[in-house]
Amino acid sequence: FEKIVNVVICAAKDAKKLGEEDPRRVIHSFKVGLAITLVSLFYYFDFLYEGFGVAAMWAVITVVVVFEFSVGATFGKGMNRGIATLLGGALGVAAHRLASFTGENAESIILGLSVFWISALATFLRFFPKLKARYDYGLLIFILTFSLISVSGYRDDEVLEMAHKRLSTVLIGGSAAVLICIFICPIWAGEDLHNLTATNIEKLAVFLEGFGREYFETNKGNKASLDGYKSVLKVKGNEEVLVNSAKWEPGHGRFRYRHPWGQYLKVGRSIRECAYKIDALNGYLNSEMQTPMEIRSKVQESCTKMSSECSCALRELAKGLKTMTRAMSAEPHIRNAKTAAKNLKSSLQTSLWPDTDLLDIIPAAAVASLIVDIVSCTIKIADSVHELACL
Amino acid sequence: FEKIVNVVICAAKDAKKLGEEDPRRVIHSFKVGLAITLVSLFYYFDFLYEGFGVAAMWAVITVVVVFEFSVGATFGKGMNRGIATLLGGALGVAAHRLASFTGENAESIILGLSVFWISALATFLRFFPKLKARYDYGLLIFILTFSLISVSGYRDDEVLEMAHKRLSTVLIGGSAAVLICIFICPIWAGEDLHNLTATNIEKLAVFLEGFGREYFETNKGNKASLDGYKSVLKVKGNEEVLVNSAKWEPGHGRFRYRHPWGQYLKVGRSIRECAYKIDALNGYLNSEMQTPMEIRSKVQESCTKMSSECSCALRELAKGLKTMTRAMSAEPHIRNAKTAAKNLKSSLQTSLWPDTDLLDIIPAAAVASLIVDIVSCTIKIADSVHELACL
Repeated sequence: FEKIVNVVICAAKDAKKLGEEDPRRVIHSFKVGLAITLVSLFYYFDFLYEGFGVAAMWAVITVVVVFEFSVGATFGKGMNRGIATLLGGALGVAAHRLASFTGENAESIILGLSVFWISALATFLRFFPKLKARYDYGLLIFILTFSLISVSGYRDDEVLEMAHKRLSTVLIGGSAAVLICIFICPIWAGEDLHNLTATNIEKLAVFLEGFGREYFETNKGNKASLDGYKSVLKVKGNEEVLVNSAKWEPGHGRFRYRHPWGQYLKVGRSIRECAYKIDALNGYLNSEMQTPMEIRSKVQESCTKMSSECSCALRELAKGLKTMTRAMSAEPHIRNAKTAAKNLKSSLQTSLWPDTDLLDIIPAAAVASLIVDIVSCTIKIADSVHELACL
Repeated sequence: FEKIVNVVICAAKDAKKLGEEDPRRVIHSFKVGLAITLVSLFYYFDFLYEGFGVAAMWAVITVVVVFEFSVGATFGKGMNRGIATLLGGALGVAAHRLASFTGENAESIILGLSVFWISALATFLRFFPKLKARYDYGLLIFILTFSLISVSGYRDDEVLEMAHKRLSTVLIGGSAAVLICIFICPIWAGEDLHNLTATNIEKLAVFLEGFGREYFETNKGNKASLDGYKSVLKVKGNEEVLVNSAKWEPGHGRFRYRHPWGQYLKVGRSIRECAYKIDALNGYLNSEMQTPMEIRSKVQESCTKMSSECSCALRELAKGLKTMTRAMSAEPHIRNAKTAAKNLKSSLQTSLWPDTDLLDIIPAAAVASLIVDIVSCTIKIADSVHELACL
């Protein structure tokens, strides 16, 4: 019994954390409850119920399965469901009518074969990556509606009415879901994506800002504060889902319809590339092979310069992204970083390193070359962000 | 019109490619068609149809939405749907009965409130990461069934019958899907996961085998052949889905029920870590900063040794994983690689580098230190694979 209490307490704590992390989750839950309750009013008011009968349940089902966290996802699913029901229903009615011209036995064989072939074909279509990304749900509903309508053993006019009822209840449920999703505290996938991108750039900037201090100075106090970039490494799948959802969204806030959402994937790729370099750099911060400070100090100036200039450039880019302006203020920082990279190269070329052990130099050299790589990654990020601003 | 023809031709080519890449996709499509056709027989045979009436459509719906590519995913969805229908139906009947004790007006208010609160709560539960991974679909179906049963404005005994019919048709549809999925050319998520892991290890081995030749020799012919490892960087999300599916699967072939599927995630993590190092190494292969060959040749021996020994060790590990034996034959290769790493360190310590430019050395040194990292990554992979074999 005590165990159960413990589980409940743990779950409650988790729930509180989930809710505090993103209060929109709580709001979303209430929105779903509200939408289902509203649509289920169909059953309470007799004049509505008489029109649709049992088919009214399709409205409830549609709300439950279509209502997603973001407006884009809900809209996409609703559109998929609506159009697929229309197409599947039409094709089902057509198959039914076609088969009914033949005799009773031939009819069921023809219908069975058409269900078999059409559902096999539609299932195979779901493997196409492009269709899978945006129309997977629609294909599922298409198979569903087609099978239900075409095999139902009713008379012709009943099938038509059934298809009609199914379509209108699905439309009612779908629009209820979409309307509630849009008009009560909307959660836009596009805005989430935009903010995610800006936050990720900032996280890189935070690391680069702290890195110089951490690596070249002896006081290693607050190292945990540099781990923020790690979440950047994980977000890829999430980003693609957000892009696919955002493509369904109408214009909202600062984003017009057909905002170049695809470009965010490109920006995301260059951000992740930079994050991997940073991860490698972080490895040297925590490495056991400690490079003597006098060697580090030889590359200190240019490395610190590069990392802090990159950090400033990234901060400017993130700010520009947030305000949706072209961040020209990043340019000078990038120029400075490039100059510092050149200086580093020349400081390595001159024989400043008389009697040092090569094994001691290597980690410092690797750090320096990683930072040079990060400068070019920063340039890539800046280019893709500028491209986004121009599209 | 020509455009349409082109699109069709393109689609046909894509379809052919998809089918050839994995012929199981075609088989899966036919399996789905077969399952739906079989279940739709309900409508044709009068004695079956009379028992269930309109509720027979739930069997068709269940087959369509539950049938997934792998046995594990189908089984998981079927179980989710079955149990959620049972729970949702039971709770719905209970709510209905409870509300019917009160007056007519109070009844609809109580039902409305219970639908609101329970669906909001269940929607919030879907945000828990653990529940989301395995029971997301079940929670959705729970909300669905509960709302449908509890708000349907029928009399008490009819509600019970409705819940009963719904449950039995869902069970029929679910078991049809699961049986066809298991007994006709089954596709096991667990086996896929196992093979994916072994193939990924092999891909790393292929790169490491070719790297020595590519980097230290001048002939740069077949560089494209080394890009195989890149697919390893992308598979993370896929792996998690496979693990979640595999956990639902009964014992099959060489895998018992409760095979330690979670450990594959750990192996996958260490494989990806190694793949990132390899990606960095690959960057040096294609880099514009060309290191003079006489410098490369100084680290050639130990680097070639390390990378070929790692490659052999990884190959042995992959072989051992495939045959599910503990690959003891990887041990000596790992030992050799470790020795080579030590040799490299001493060759760097001695002053073999009199008049060379530091800037030329750095890339070679970075390559050498990356290969040393790869040796430790290989050890990590070996450890996690051994752990898997022992579990």
